[in-house]
Amino acid sequence: MDMRKRAVVILSGGLDSTTCLGIADKEGYIVHALSFDYGQRHSIELEAAKRVAAHYRVAEHRIAHLPFLREIGGSALTSDTLTVPTGGVVTGDIPITYVPGRNLIFLSIATAYAEVVGASALYLGINALDYSGYPDCRPEFIEAFATAATLATKAGVEGKLLRIETPLLHLTKGDIIRLGTSLGVPYEWTVSCYQGHDVACGRCDSCRLRLKGFADAGILDPIAYAMCD
Amino acid sequence: MDMRKRAVVILSGGLDSTTCLGIADKEGYIVHALSFDYGQRHSIELEAAKRVAAHYRVAEHRIAHLPFLREIGGSALTSDTLTVPTGGVVTGDIPITYVPGRNLIFLSIATAYAEVVGASALYLGINALDYSGYPDCRPEFIEAFATAATLATKAGVEGKLLRIETPLLHLTKGDIIRLGTSLGVPYEWTVSCYQGHDVACGRCDSCRLRLKGFADAGILDPIAYAMCD
Repeated sequence: MDMRKRAVVILSGGLDSTTCLGIADKEGYIVHALSFDYGQRHSIELEAAKRVAAHYRVAEHRIAHLPFLREIGGSALTSDTLTVPTGGVVTGDIPITYVPGRNLIFLSIATAYAEVVGASALYLGINALDYSGYPDCRPEFIEAFATAATLATKAGVEGKLLRIETPLLHLTKGDIIRLGTSLGVPYEWTVSCYQGHDVACGRCDSCRLRLKGFADAGILDPIAYAMCD
Repeated sequence: MDMRKRAVVILSGGLDSTTCLGIADKEGYIVHALSFDYGQRHSIELEAAKRVAAHYRVAEHRIAHLPFLREIGGSALTSDTLTVPTGGVVTGDIPITYVPGRNLIFLSIATAYAEVVGASALYLGINALDYSGYPDCRPEFIEAFATAATLATKAGVEGKLLRIETPLLHLTKGDIIRLGTSLGVPYEWTVSCYQGHDVACGRCDSCRLRLKGFADAGILDPIAYAMCD
């Protein structure tokens, strides 16, 4: 029997979560990857997650379906009518791409999954610097969630602590890319663009953050971009 | 425009959640009922929830599908192979009917729903006395969750507090039934049995708790039971 410890990694197929998977892999965990199909516009993100999970030969890759997040609406990321902004970098306000309760729900489901597979760590690739507009990306939320999760679960009651690992929390996008590149993270298979087309638009907030990150790191982004106007 | 405040009520179609809906209705809230289809064995529970929601003419009754809870397993309530116990009353141990992370996940999704509809209260019919074996029915979990939810949401950041109301937390089953009866709660449409047949078995832990509750309250249970052996 493999005596290594187990970790659940929340894997969107984007740059940050894929870097987290690379970190958990480097740490020697048996990885259980968990992706969410919550009605986000771009299923190519889930395809990217599958390729990344296969690359790392994870023990299991599960996709949790959450149609309800789309049904109740409230975000440009799950809406057919709201437009994803392409105006520039994220400001201090809460962006229209905020999905109500997203990380709260993702972490809750991942906590249940971690309990069932006996994982001692749960990786989430949130980042406080780039996404300061999302309330559920703040360290104080993560700490409060960890307390609630410990109290909610049989594992927690039995003293088996589930550590919530957010190794990217205080890194810049450039730092993340430098770290991931040193770990051999396959960024060519990751998807960041909010638009969900086959080729990244290069103009939405997410593409801009990614491009700036690679520029800051002095590393060439291996994915293709549509011509910018 | 209706200026009454809004509340989300987590409605299973059971005795406790239906009593919560009766309380929220009595308090004057516009009610948004939320049920979960998480692969529990008995879809008759969801049918009961629909009847109860219709009885109270709620503003909206949504059913969130969570197939993942069944897919990952870990509970007799969502398993085809584990047997629901019929041996007697609940003890201090965590029962086999525990569903990993259930209330954590339910509350997280309900928090997102509350944010979208602008609800200021969220009702959950948990009970610390009868279900002392479930870690996610304890007051300390609810308090920790409320803190995490406030930090996770745009509404919380903007100071719009979501109160988590657990009015049954410290009541006995008999107390709950007396209270609900005084409010005219339609217990004839509620379902408690774990077995999921058309007629309650009268033998599973949930039936036993219900029957004892009606006996303690000195009130006749209006539902039918199969003959006990």
